Amino acid sequence: MNIVVAQSGGPTCAINASLVGVFREALKQPEIDAVFGAFNGIEGMIQDHLVDLKTLLRTDRDLDLLRQTPSTVLGSCRYKLPDWHEDDSVYRQIVQCLKRRKIGAFFYIGGNDSMDTVHKLSGYLKEVGMDTRVIGIPKTIDNDLRITDHTPGFGSAAKYVATTMQEIIRDSSVYSIPSVTIVEVMGRHAGWLTASSAVLHAMGEPAPYLVYVPEANFSERRFLRDVEQEMAKYKAVVVAVSKGIAVPEGVQSGLIDQFGHKYLSGIGKYLKQMARSQFGCKVRSIELNVMQRCSSHLCSKTDIDESEQIGMAGVRCAMQGVTDRVMVFRRIHDKPYTVVMEPADAALIANREKFLPGDFLTPAGNNISENALAYFLPLIQGELNLIMENGIPVHFRVQNIILP
Amino acid sequence: MNIVVAQSGGPTCAINASLVGVFREALKQPEIDAVFGAFNGIEGMIQDHLVDLKTLLRTDRDLDLLRQTPSTVLGSCRYKLPDWHEDDSVYRQIVQCLKRRKIGAFFYIGGNDSMDTVHKLSGYLKEVGMDTRVIGIPKTIDNDLRITDHTPGFGSAAKYVATTMQEIIRDSSVYSIPSVTIVEVMGRHAGWLTASSAVLHAMGEPAPYLVYVPEANFSERRFLRDVEQEMAKYKAVVVAVSKGIAVPEGVQSGLIDQFGHKYLSGIGKYLKQMARSQFGCKVRSIELNVMQRCSSHLCSKTDIDESEQIGMAGVRCAMQGVTDRVMVFRRIHDKPYTVVMEPADAALIANREKFLPGDFLTPAGNNISENALAYFLPLIQGELNLIMENGIPVHFRVQNIILP
Repeated sequence: MNIVVAQSGGPTCAINASLVGVFREALKQPEIDAVFGAFNGIEGMIQDHLVDLKTLLRTDRDLDLLRQTPSTVLGSCRYKLPDWHEDDSVYRQIVQCLKRRKIGAFFYIGGNDSMDTVHKLSGYLKEVGMDTRVIGIPKTIDNDLRITDHTPGFGSAAKYVATTMQEIIRDSSVYSIPSVTIVEVMGRHAGWLTASSAVLHAMGEPAPYLVYVPEANFSERRFLRDVEQEMAKYKAVVVAVSKGIAVPEGVQSGLIDQFGHKYLSGIGKYLKQMARSQFGCKVRSIELNVMQRCSSHLCSKTDIDESEQIGMAGVRCAMQGVTDRVMVFRRIHDKPYTVVMEPADAALIANREKFLPGDFLTPAGNNISENALAYFLPLIQGELNLIMENGIPVHFRVQNIILP
Repeated sequence: MNIVVAQSGGPTCAINASLVGVFREALKQPEIDAVFGAFNGIEGMIQDHLVDLKTLLRTDRDLDLLRQTPSTVLGSCRYKLPDWHEDDSVYRQIVQCLKRRKIGAFFYIGGNDSMDTVHKLSGYLKEVGMDTRVIGIPKTIDNDLRITDHTPGFGSAAKYVATTMQEIIRDSSVYSIPSVTIVEVMGRHAGWLTASSAVLHAMGEPAPYLVYVPEANFSERRFLRDVEQEMAKYKAVVVAVSKGIAVPEGVQSGLIDQFGHKYLSGIGKYLKQMARSQFGCKVRSIELNVMQRCSSHLCSKTDIDESEQIGMAGVRCAMQGVTDRVMVFRRIHDKPYTVVMEPADAALIANREKFLPGDFLTPAGNNISENALAYFLPLIQGELNLIMENGIPVHFRVQNIILP
């Protein structure tokens, strides 16, 4: 049989590593012939826009480069499949593609929206009597997928956020005047990535002094009181805040994507203005922006290795006939860090979210507790031995040209 | 004799390496007894707020950690000395400090504003018959100091900007829809750092497709026409733009610092709005913010090593009786990259700026020419073998506590 792999959702440092895992394991499986890649996620399946990955990935060096290349080598999409009971036209196009290419298994690397695609497509294929297996390989820097201990891509993003937070802390403390620095971290409804900045506490760094996540109630009065209290103790107060904390209407830009998510922007700048008018001191806001999801020069080796391994495990599961499943990590120990990989029901993961447990927050809800550190620390360990050229990491590149 | 070193101006990844250089060379010089550090630049001299560096930096590991720690371990300032012909009160305070501490040489690590301090203080000390030597050690990520081939701190910032630009290019190319990404880079009047993102062209990366620096005339009509042309060729158009390009009044926040510099903000967001309303496509703006000056996890080994060496060279010059001088690099060859260090007249550097040469720009003025690459590439070579703990680089830390 042939197989196909596709990538979906927002970029991370680890999506390509999972593709490498699928590809490497497929080469080992005697039943698998061609390994296709679909461009732009499920859109590539609908339009039969595939590439034979053996022609794209020719050498071990190609695979090593791809492991250290952020974002998605095959492109991505934010395409939501309709309910096939109501409209099965795109499903029929996908089936045509699967049949024409003799595809026995489809691997979809993505977040909770993509796991909706995995679940719907599996259901449809069963309904029409096809035995093509559909397996989800998780990824998201948000770490908000249910069932799995953590998500591929999160560890690298967390390592970037914590490392950069530490550098911002140094940067903020240079002048003799008091200052407040607000660091805005990605996180729509879940505060995992923002919370990960607190791993610095394990290294004896008291900052970030305040951490605000969507899981705790946020009040502007409380925020100003908290900052005032920290300013009495510290010259340079550094605060981490999730993009998605509850703020008044109008701060968010109001645009809504296909899955109904609001595009958030500006919470850092909003709090900056508030703190500046309250305290009259130097206040900065810093948005970590897309760097937190694509800074593969600082990826976590643990994350990249695991992301590859979970792609491999997905292929082995599919070969055993498993379908409509998402591969997940189950943690056995924090110390020594041990995880196993296993399949979980896609319906339990699709479109759902996982939030920070209550005991990861301090009682006041404005910082991260020590309990959380044992969870976060193993995920950011290790660095890749990057292939460099001219002082810059080498990326595996495909063209960015508009086809005629 | 004793000596004193201080740090001034905005943070970089290399200021602490220059302090390590001054300290290490001082330990070798038999004539030098104590090595003091002044807190918050010249403010520490005025207030006699000094620390004996031998009590702060005790081991080789301390020095290695300090080399990989961004920002300024002794704090910084933006204090401009008055003209001593008009008001010499602070000069008299500095002289008191120099005499009380038996200081024979003062080393000031900073940018062109700090070299104004070097020059004024040298002049005053000569006038009052003191033979304390005053030596400037350059630093700035802006690379805008005259006479020197380049400035300590620039190479690390350039390496960060180019590496991150490449990651943003990958991140920008994931979706099938056309998009424009505007990356805002620091640079008040000089476009060195923005231009350095074009080193990617040497690695066969065609992006950034457009690069706008303050040295070229900027017109909004031209910008929109340029972007339109690139959009016809490329799906994801990535643009680098200096914070300081000429834009209409009101874009800049209008605040002015002590040296008369405007605090610039918002050019990326401004161009984003303009492009979005013109083209109606996905347009993002990304500000590299303080990360471009403090991301020591990605510093250039060439930069850090040179920054230490130029601190050492400064001490050797002072021991030969040199004063009122700034240490500079003179480049002998691009390939193999060879520089020498020598003292230059502080008056020629203080308060002046150096701009990108005309032949570093393409004839159209909207990108960087190949001529520039041989200049930039040697400065970003090599990586430090970072000391890590728990997956995060270890910093040399001093307290951030408000003294009672």
